[in-house]
Amino acid sequence: MTAGTIHGVGLGPGSPDLMSVRADRLVRAARHVAYFRKAGKPGQARRIVEGMLRDDVTEYPMDYPVTTEIPLSDPRYAETLAAFYEDVAAPLRALAEGGEDVVVLAEGDPFFYGSFMHLYTRLRPHVPVAVVPGITGMSAAWSATGTPITWGDDVMTVVPATLREAALTARIASTDALVVMKIGQNLSKLKRATEQAGRMDDAWLVEYAAMPDQRVVPLAEVDTAPYFSIALIHGQGRRP
Amino acid sequence: MTAGTIHGVGLGPGSPDLMSVRADRLVRAARHVAYFRKAGKPGQARRIVEGMLRDDVTEYPMDYPVTTEIPLSDPRYAETLAAFYEDVAAPLRALAEGGEDVVVLAEGDPFFYGSFMHLYTRLRPHVPVAVVPGITGMSAAWSATGTPITWGDDVMTVVPATLREAALTARIASTDALVVMKIGQNLSKLKRATEQAGRMDDAWLVEYAAMPDQRVVPLAEVDTAPYFSIALIHGQGRRP
Repeated sequence: MTAGTIHGVGLGPGSPDLMSVRADRLVRAARHVAYFRKAGKPGQARRIVEGMLRDDVTEYPMDYPVTTEIPLSDPRYAETLAAFYEDVAAPLRALAEGGEDVVVLAEGDPFFYGSFMHLYTRLRPHVPVAVVPGITGMSAAWSATGTPITWGDDVMTVVPATLREAALTARIASTDALVVMKIGQNLSKLKRATEQAGRMDDAWLVEYAAMPDQRVVPLAEVDTAPYFSIALIHGQGRRP
Repeated sequence: MTAGTIHGVGLGPGSPDLMSVRADRLVRAARHVAYFRKAGKPGQARRIVEGMLRDDVTEYPMDYPVTTEIPLSDPRYAETLAAFYEDVAAPLRALAEGGEDVVVLAEGDPFFYGSFMHLYTRLRPHVPVAVVPGITGMSAAWSATGTPITWGDDVMTVVPATLREAALTARIASTDALVVMKIGQNLSKLKRATEQAGRMDDAWLVEYAAMPDQRVVPLAEVDTAPYFSIALIHGQGRRP
């Protein structure tokens, strides 16, 4: 029997018509669809494909066992997540070994800070895995601001707000264009770092880019950041 | 009369089915399609949409007046390009003022190092301009390598190879994940900088990502880089 393929499909930033034509086709044709979500929540990836799935689709929700309950620094965090990824990879591998194709939904681009990568490394030694790139959340965020992110010879740095404050400050001070991911609980630290780097006047927070609640606000003016938030500073490089 | 809209449409990295559903719809419906190209060449953006345009479409090729003939540092370079962008923006503005929608084709993402931005700044004060984000060439490049680009708390830096060698070296040495754009004539400098930064063993060159001639090779082994080349170093961050 020929093995099926696991497709890691980038869905883009949130609006269904910002997924690629290839992703759209794969999602609509899929018999087996898997996606991550927080336990008890519908899941952003699943929400994006609402109304697109076949009537006879089988869904495989993969509920994260921990999010904020265990600190990242605790070894139990990695152990718990490793066991979780092993557990959820197993039935997908079995489907592919049985000749079935599976679509794994991934927000944004599957290879850019995503959970799909943890399945990918576990599945690829055993069954065919194909990846469909997607429009990143950061592309949607800078599009939402109405201002290009990089010009000419601009350097762009993408930093997770999970970095320590001093490291964040140094990164913000030393780049032309800036993108900050994973803000959430790190907003106050990010604001202090941006202020210390002397760049608060140029910093924006984009909430829910490419989603119905999209909002662009000066970083200085926000006190909370929803999970889907990206901070930006635009490059000012050469422009004829 | 209601003004038409200029749509800056990100086409993605090169494969037609990697453009977004929104881009696909806009391109197929367009009565007026504009695109940049090198004089005498068909143009990569136009090539991507081959077979998708309406029979009654009107095309507006915009032929770059200079590419490598005048050095970037020469003031005539900026002057020549500024005059060119003014010239090509004028008829598009006239179309929109006359109530017609226009699609401007943009490779990758329109706001990420692209020529469309130079039209955008000139048109937006006068007529409605909408931007459709796209899958970047770098997403296609890291997908082509079969290895995720960023994990956990990885910092990713995007640098144009047009930087001076010392600046390039410093950037390569101080990031987790690296993406290098605009390689072309800067390949030898990039290789020296990568070597000096001690990271040559982890560096890849991706040629023609998401196009028929796609090729992934160790950076150390290449002596020429086609125009559509991106160099990468993958992040090695936290992974449970």
